[in-house]
Amino acid sequence: MNFSSKLLEKAVDEMSQLPGIGKRTALRLVLHLLNRPKSQTEQLTESLIQLVNQINFCTSCHNISDHEICEICANPRRDSETICVVEDIRDVMAIENTAQFKGLYHVLGGKISPMEGIGPQHLKIDSLVDKVKSGQIKELIFALSSTIEGDTTNFYIFKKIQAYDIRITTIARGISVGDELEYADEVTLGRSILHRIPFENSLRR
Amino acid sequence: MNFSSKLLEKAVDEMSQLPGIGKRTALRLVLHLLNRPKSQTEQLTESLIQLVNQINFCTSCHNISDHEICEICANPRRDSETICVVEDIRDVMAIENTAQFKGLYHVLGGKISPMEGIGPQHLKIDSLVDKVKSGQIKELIFALSSTIEGDTTNFYIFKKIQAYDIRITTIARGISVGDELEYADEVTLGRSILHRIPFENSLRR
Repeated sequence: MNFSSKLLEKAVDEMSQLPGIGKRTALRLVLHLLNRPKSQTEQLTESLIQLVNQINFCTSCHNISDHEICEICANPRRDSETICVVEDIRDVMAIENTAQFKGLYHVLGGKISPMEGIGPQHLKIDSLVDKVKSGQIKELIFALSSTIEGDTTNFYIFKKIQAYDIRITTIARGISVGDELEYADEVTLGRSILHRIPFENSLRR
Repeated sequence: MNFSSKLLEKAVDEMSQLPGIGKRTALRLVLHLLNRPKSQTEQLTESLIQLVNQINFCTSCHNISDHEICEICANPRRDSETICVVEDIRDVMAIENTAQFKGLYHVLGGKISPMEGIGPQHLKIDSLVDKVKSGQIKELIFALSSTIEGDTTNFYIFKKIQAYDIRITTIARGISVGDELEYADEVTLGRSILHRIPFENSLRR
């Protein structure tokens, strides 16, 4: 692209380093900033700077938090004996939105992926194993993506903690609510039959 | 969405005010910022702040510029008697990329659109008419979008300057290079026949 301004070029360059933002989109976003009051751009940049400088991660579950211990871990009404293991902060949000889980979380920060050079040492696995060792946990629920990387991570953690006396579960895989059977993939459909549940249980929502 | 952090929520809110960025995309972008070194986010925000605070618009053509007069207007090798009228800074870039135009530009800053409350007084039309009045221009090329708003804007400017002795042209409308005739719309195809050119001319690139 042929920029008439170095300032513009630099802003577009920086913006286009964000994931999924190409040069054209970056240009559109940056020109939008020029069309609105400066104060709005100052608010945007200030909130980003505050975020990266002041953000904390909960020392217990590694979720994003404004405090040393996040609101979920600090909430005495949550069941601290049940831990749901997730990859990412977004997964915590997704599960919280269902309002079906009253335990605590443990955010691994990713999954084991040799292809991307992510090994167990890059994830928050040690602190999870320590929690299990401490004997305060009764159940660990794996809620990772149903991919090879997710399964590998589950299995790695399982091997590390299987000697301890806790219940280890994984979220149910099956047909999505509202989906038609004929379009479901074979593996999912097969698992949904294998892990069928008493009909009465399906009536609870 | 259920944010565990006010800082995160604020950053996502600000980010999602950009055009085409929803809450989910904003969250993905903001979490990406947290995963990379702080210095990169500081560079991003600094370049945006510099842009909105220091940007200039060329006093002659109204294009974005780091100086009072942009590089194109200041270039003595460009033909200052031919002016290409465009809506937007992006159109200048697009035409510059073709390397087919050696004149100067005039950036209107939009087109007349009663639906969006944009009248002639919101556009840089007066300064264009002044340029024409000054007698230094031989040709004005309209290069606006081929929409009702574009045509209206062309016609409004045409009425204001038709009394002056200059050539007024508009970029050719026709079948795109590489397009198949059967998929072209009728109006474009009709115009391409009406405004046919000598075959020899089509051999020049």
